Amino acid sequence: MTGTLYVIGVGPGDPELLTLKAARIIREVPCICVPKGREEGSSLALSIVKKIISLDSKNIIEAHFPMRKTKKSSDMSELDTKWNETVATVMGVLDSGTDMAFITIGDPTVYSTFFYLYYRLLELNPSLTIEIVPGISSIMASAARAKISLGLADEKIAVLPATYADDISAVLAHFDTVVLMKVHKVFDRIILELDKAGLTNKAVYISRAGMDDEEVIHNITMLRGKELNYFSMVIVKK
Amino acid sequence: MTGTLYVIGVGPGDPELLTLKAARIIREVPCICVPKGREEGSSLALSIVKKIISLDSKNIIEAHFPMRKTKKSSDMSELDTKWNETVATVMGVLDSGTDMAFITIGDPTVYSTFFYLYYRLLELNPSLTIEIVPGISSIMASAARAKISLGLADEKIAVLPATYADDISAVLAHFDTVVLMKVHKVFDRIILELDKAGLTNKAVYISRAGMDDEEVIHNITMLRGKELNYFSMVIVKK
Repeated sequence: MTGTLYVIGVGPGDPELLTLKAARIIREVPCICVPKGREEGSSLALSIVKKIISLDSKNIIEAHFPMRKTKKSSDMSELDTKWNETVATVMGVLDSGTDMAFITIGDPTVYSTFFYLYYRLLELNPSLTIEIVPGISSIMASAARAKISLGLADEKIAVLPATYADDISAVLAHFDTVVLMKVHKVFDRIILELDKAGLTNKAVYISRAGMDDEEVIHNITMLRGKELNYFSMVIVKK
Repeated sequence: MTGTLYVIGVGPGDPELLTLKAARIIREVPCICVPKGREEGSSLALSIVKKIISLDSKNIIEAHFPMRKTKKSSDMSELDTKWNETVATVMGVLDSGTDMAFITIGDPTVYSTFFYLYYRLLELNPSLTIEIVPGISSIMASAARAKISLGLADEKIAVLPATYADDISAVLAHFDTVVLMKVHKVFDRIILELDKAGLTNKAVYISRAGMDDEEVIHNITMLRGKELNYFSMVIVKK
C-alpha cells in the first residue's frame, strides 16, 4: 500500500492558527517533509509546528524546493535535477507505505511551492493519494490584523504578486480591494502608483501578521526607502 | 471593564477546519453571537461549532443581520432599524463586561456580514476591543478539494462576486486565476462567458467544500439549467 501524502497549510506564523485537522494529522504521521534551502525562513513552517507539537519521534525530511521567480526562468536544467531528487525522496517514503505530511506556511493553494512538487509526483504516479488540508493564508491573517474587509456584498478582490508592478494602476481602477504580495522589493514603485491613483491613504502595510514582531502601518509613506520584511504585503481598500 | 468582541471565522463546514485559536476562544467565552434570519444556513456557523464544542452552558444570541445584496439597495430604513437592534444587543453584552464571540462561516474578512456590524459598533464606541480571528475561507477550501493552485510565482488572482457577470470576460483576459463566488443564480451566464473565452474546460465547480455532500465537477457544462447550491463557486485556472 502506497502511503498518503497530506499537504498541510500551517498558517502564517501563530501556531494557534493551525487547524484542528492540521494538528491531528501532523501528530499522526511518522514522516514530515519541509522545503529547505531558501533564504527566507525555509524552516518557518517547521518552527511554527514545533511550538505546539513534539516532532522528536518523527522522520523529518528537509528537501530542496528550488524556486522559479517567474514561469520563464532560464536555468531550468539545474532546477530540474534538484527537483528530481526531492521527488524521488518523497516518492521513496510513500512507496514504502509510510504516510507523509508536507507542511507549508500559509495555505497550500496560495503561492506555495507545493504545487511544483504535486505536478511532478502525479506524472510519476497518477493514482497517488494526496489530500490538501487548507491553512490560514497570510492574506486573511493580514486583513484580520489590519481590521480590513477584503470584500463585502458585490466588491471585487484582486491579488497581485508584486512582480506585476506594471499592472497595478489598471487593477486599482477596476477592483475594490487590491492585495499586493511580497512588496519588499518594489515598495517605492508601489507608493508611486498609489500616489498617482490617489489611493495612498487607502493602503495599509502589514508585515508578519500575527507574529511577535508584526507591523501594521497605515501611513505607508513613512516606509519609503526603508528595508522591509520578506513576509509583508499591502492591502488597498477603496 | 467593557468585554472583548472576538470575531471568529469557523471555516467552511468541516468542524476540524476550525483553528486551535477559534476552538479555544469559543470554549472560553460565556456568550456567542450568530446571525439569524437568512434563508441560507443562518445557523450553519453554530452547527459547525456544535459538532465539536459543547455550547450548553453558554448564552447564545441569534441576532438579525439583514443583508444588502449591493451597496445601493433601496430599503435602507428597515435594514437600519434591525441593525440598530442587533448593535444594541451586542453592545449591551459587552458593556456588562462579558466577552463575546461572534462566529461566522469561512473567514471574517471575506464577504462576511460581520463588517456591517463592525462599522456600526465602532461608531458607538471607537475604543471597543475587537479581535478578528481568521478562518479557512471557502475559497481556499474549494481550491484544496479541487487540487487547484490559486496562484504560483507571478500569477494574478481575481475574486468576483457573481453579481459582476458583466466583468467576467475582461477579468478572464487579464488574470491567471478567477474565482467566481456564489454562482448558483448566474450559472448559465457564466458558462456563456467561459465558452466565449474558450476557458470552459479550465473551470471547476465546487459546492460545499469539505462537507459530506460536497461536489467537485470538472465538466461544468453538465450543470447547465440545474438547481445549484448556495455554497458553490467556480474556479477558472488558465
